[in-house]
Amino acid sequence: MDAWKTRKTWLNMFSRLPGEAARTPEETARAELNCFLESHPEESCTLSVREDMGEDYILTDTGVTGGSAGILYGAYRWMACRALRVPLPSGKQSPACALRMLNAWDNMDGTIERGYAGRSLWFEGGRFSYDPARIRQLGRMLASVGINVLCLNNVNVREPAQGLISETLDELASFAALLRPFAVRLMVAVDFAQPVREGLDTADPLSPEVQRFWAEKAKKVWEAIPDLAGFLVKADSEHRPGPHTYGRDHADGANMLARAVAPYGGVILWRAFVYNCLQDWRDQKTDRPKAAYALYQPMDGRFCENVILQVKNGPYDFQVREPLSPLFYGMEHTRLALEVQLAQEYTGHQIDLYYMAPMWEELRAEMPAGSVAAVAAVTNLGRDDNWTGHPFAAANLFAYGRFAWDPASDAEAVAREWAALSYALDESQRETLVSLLMSSRAIYEQYTANLGLDWMIEPGHHYGPNPYGYEFSPWGTYNRADRFGVGVDRTSRGTDYVGQYPAPWRELYEDPEKCPEKLLLFFHRLSYGHLMADGRTLIQRLYDDHFEGARRAEELSQKLNTLDLPEPDRKEALERAALQVKNAREWRDVLNTFFFRFSGVPDAHGRTIY
Amino acid sequence: MDAWKTRKTWLNMFSRLPGEAARTPEETARAELNCFLESHPEESCTLSVREDMGEDYILTDTGVTGGSAGILYGAYRWMACRALRVPLPSGKQSPACALRMLNAWDNMDGTIERGYAGRSLWFEGGRFSYDPARIRQLGRMLASVGINVLCLNNVNVREPAQGLISETLDELASFAALLRPFAVRLMVAVDFAQPVREGLDTADPLSPEVQRFWAEKAKKVWEAIPDLAGFLVKADSEHRPGPHTYGRDHADGANMLARAVAPYGGVILWRAFVYNCLQDWRDQKTDRPKAAYALYQPMDGRFCENVILQVKNGPYDFQVREPLSPLFYGMEHTRLALEVQLAQEYTGHQIDLYYMAPMWEELRAEMPAGSVAAVAAVTNLGRDDNWTGHPFAAANLFAYGRFAWDPASDAEAVAREWAALSYALDESQRETLVSLLMSSRAIYEQYTANLGLDWMIEPGHHYGPNPYGYEFSPWGTYNRADRFGVGVDRTSRGTDYVGQYPAPWRELYEDPEKCPEKLLLFFHRLSYGHLMADGRTLIQRLYDDHFEGARRAEELSQKLNTLDLPEPDRKEALERAALQVKNAREWRDVLNTFFFRFSGVPDAHGRTIY
Repeated sequence: MDAWKTRKTWLNMFSRLPGEAARTPEETARAELNCFLESHPEESCTLSVREDMGEDYILTDTGVTGGSAGILYGAYRWMACRALRVPLPSGKQSPACALRMLNAWDNMDGTIERGYAGRSLWFEGGRFSYDPARIRQLGRMLASVGINVLCLNNVNVREPAQGLISETLDELASFAALLRPFAVRLMVAVDFAQPVREGLDTADPLSPEVQRFWAEKAKKVWEAIPDLAGFLVKADSEHRPGPHTYGRDHADGANMLARAVAPYGGVILWRAFVYNCLQDWRDQKTDRPKAAYALYQPMDGRFCENVILQVKNGPYDFQVREPLSPLFYGMEHTRLALEVQLAQEYTGHQIDLYYMAPMWEELRAEMPAGSVAAVAAVTNLGRDDNWTGHPFAAANLFAYGRFAWDPASDAEAVAREWAALSYALDESQRETLVSLLMSSRAIYEQYTANLGLDWMIEPGHHYGPNPYGYEFSPWGTYNRADRFGVGVDRTSRGTDYVGQYPAPWRELYEDPEKCPEKLLLFFHRLSYGHLMADGRTLIQRLYDDHFEGARRAEELSQKLNTLDLPEPDRKEALERAALQVKNAREWRDVLNTFFFRFSGVPDAHGRTIY
Repeated sequence: MDAWKTRKTWLNMFSRLPGEAARTPEETARAELNCFLESHPEESCTLSVREDMGEDYILTDTGVTGGSAGILYGAYRWMACRALRVPLPSGKQSPACALRMLNAWDNMDGTIERGYAGRSLWFEGGRFSYDPARIRQLGRMLASVGINVLCLNNVNVREPAQGLISETLDELASFAALLRPFAVRLMVAVDFAQPVREGLDTADPLSPEVQRFWAEKAKKVWEAIPDLAGFLVKADSEHRPGPHTYGRDHADGANMLARAVAPYGGVILWRAFVYNCLQDWRDQKTDRPKAAYALYQPMDGRFCENVILQVKNGPYDFQVREPLSPLFYGMEHTRLALEVQLAQEYTGHQIDLYYMAPMWEELRAEMPAGSVAAVAAVTNLGRDDNWTGHPFAAANLFAYGRFAWDPASDAEAVAREWAALSYALDESQRETLVSLLMSSRAIYEQYTANLGLDWMIEPGHHYGPNPYGYEFSPWGTYNRADRFGVGVDRTSRGTDYVGQYPAPWRELYEDPEKCPEKLLLFFHRLSYGHLMADGRTLIQRLYDDHFEGARRAEELSQKLNTLDLPEPDRKEALERAALQVKNAREWRDVLNTFFFRFSGVPDAHGRTIY
């Protein structure tokens, strides 16, 4: 285990990690508060636990009242408000949903799938390996923003991770105990074929033997970890086993597991990320964004109460710009979890700046009320000293906690709060930092995926441009650019993906004149001469956006350079900004050349296209 | 070490591996001959060694006369001719060059860079690990076709392979001893930075300290292995260290090493595979094929006598169709080795059938007399039970030996000899097998790289089509396809790569009307409407070739199915043929769609382009 230099991101307001004595969230709250009051002698605060309040809390100038977990959330919030000298939130604070989870894609060999901040914080060499102080610091980060569940292993469960609910269950229990004082419960990603691993001939969910296996497995697991949140399952997706292997459907599979864990209050998070990843590029009828709705919508109403279908925000896979998944409109009788990705897989690898909260504001605006029962986010954390690779990427974890608790949060206010907690900048500099965060997504989108044209990214690692990289692949991610135009027609005249949406979305997306411009090439195939609302041609708009996005990335880097950040954050941020400028130029030039070679249309302003 | 089931490829004529008693090639020859005569009681043969004959030999109906190595080569040849009932070669047989080498790109972890026949035959887990019987069988295969040097480790020397001439030198010596009875000497790929690894501050070739280091190193190495052939060096290429690190040139670097090994009769093989692998795709002036000539030609005459510059056959990197490297015309005062690649990196991964000897016939036709002092081939061998993945890929190793010995060999006759030695087929079936081999290169070329349009292959692993996969990469391998045409202009009006060739080649390549059609798009950028010699347009020719190549791949598979091959060869060959058919269709459809999307020109015969 590498030495860790105690960087605390937005927990900088707290002088030190409280001791190990705290065993419950209440004790943690008292320890944290005592620390805080020592360095703020002008303040006083009393904690009152009211068990029936659960996760809720109420703040006053001199006190926090809350439930067994709420007391801790309330204490953190009270301290943050006092430290920042901002008003306390008034009235009872309650989370919008009960399950607010972080999904770690950590492998037991110490790697993290799509990890951009170093190796796993808790796995190495095929086993648990961690610094307990750092895990407690992690628990504190999560609790300070109200995240209450950590799924600790990759959804792609590979040996020896199957052993987490078997041979190494006792180590899992020890790890769970470390996070319990922070009101963070564990969840485990399990392999649907676990029964076969443990000697059965089948994992068929309708087999009584398999049902018995899981019932006994759940009993043992919850005996060891009584507050385990549940199991997460990725089945029949990207070469993972699942019910389809046995001719059963996903309701059969999920419900079988749900019945096994129900006696212990466990939930089954069942990932809806299922599509044909061996598509023939010649096939223009199959359309990957349609896959999940086509599979799950007919099963609506068939899932047990403790099954939650975990749905990525968009129908593809965490692209920069996607419409909301139609499952959120079509599963009225099924509990859904919204899954987002803090790990910047397609959004700049925690090199390019990309603050995600503006996207979550947009999602909220389109999300039907009451459609989400839980939220999950793929973590952006790793063993790097600063936790998140780019020090500002911590803002995404912070904001995720805030939005998970209250989806009506304001992205800019949250950014401001994160900035104020993290860095002692004067107000003008803080506002610069906030503006950098707030503009970052639009900039990245502009040079990589404007008008909803996703997937022009380098296959495999997903950083940098490769506009035809996926064009003849089996992944179902095509732009079909040719000398006449670009895009996939997903209207009723094409693949009819729009048919999965209810009114008014269907009509909006169907018509290129009404379709939101940011999604224009997601839904439509258009000629390069297509006239945009402002009179520009499509091809000129593509060029303009790429030039403008790259220019703004340079501007972002220059503004960043004016900030009096502490070291090493300043150095880390500037190094990444220089790489982002280079990356943005590469995107600009490759995409412009790509479209120029097809269209033959020069830039109207005579700028260089290579 | 996996069990090995004693498959012998073309050594099937020999009943069994002779015992370990033989310590010299002469003793091996006697043991092999005794074995042979036991099963051919109608024959008789006496061996007469004449030391002054070296590698040469003379055959008669009842005897072999030859030098210390020639006696073994002669014995194998005599047995082969007798077994096949073909006339013996008449007169003294002498090799065209003294150094006929196999380059293994084996890593000490057991992997083989660009290996398609399993793991290393002699390395595993960071150390030597082999079945001595299999290594002797390997020695026998090499000796039977006159290959006399094996460079056993990857030219990209990574730890712990630097230890081969240091900590593990004794193991290297034991390995050398195993091959000595087969007249096969070892060569070692060394790291130019070895002095730094062993504690010096520098590897500067002009440093007396470094020169002393290498002199002492050579002394120790040759003490352990007195017949070591020499060192092979890949310097300043694809991120390897080299003289450029110290502001020295390659003559400085190679000569320094040459002086160290000269007292022991050692040679330095210095690879000329040097180019800018971090090219900016925007840069249309830099042209990778020009790199080696530009670097080395000015140094012609400066290399020591025991330096051999190892030059790949073409200026790029073992593509299906390249012109002969201009270095073969421009280095009159430097000894050159011709390097070819048996490992089918770009030529079908030992899945698609690809017999290389027809290419070597073409090379010979263009090669100036006396320009080649040595030959080297990247091996296609691995631990697979059949040695070469595709059982027919063994024909390439066999033919390489024959062509290395006598470049004037006939590709078809050699294929026939290999087929007859390997399989007991009737004459008609044998001729079918020979015709499959002989047509295989043209077929693969037709569906992957017709008209010299290389590099449209999947980046990284190099199997399957990806026409724009390298287009925006730093590797210097671009086709620059757009809506108007395709290709790089390498004439005097373009990058002037043709200027590196003497007459008549320069004039031939300069003019698209005179340029050999197979190289047309290697040298020229042409519009899709360009008229070919037969009146077809360029675009139609591209389509026609892709359709025709895929059709012929299917035909090849069907013909293969008619052969009464023994198992498991038949199964192995048919499985690979089915994959080749699939691969050929993919190439056909991807390339046709790619060019159709750019050109907008439909196929004149109305065939399906997706």
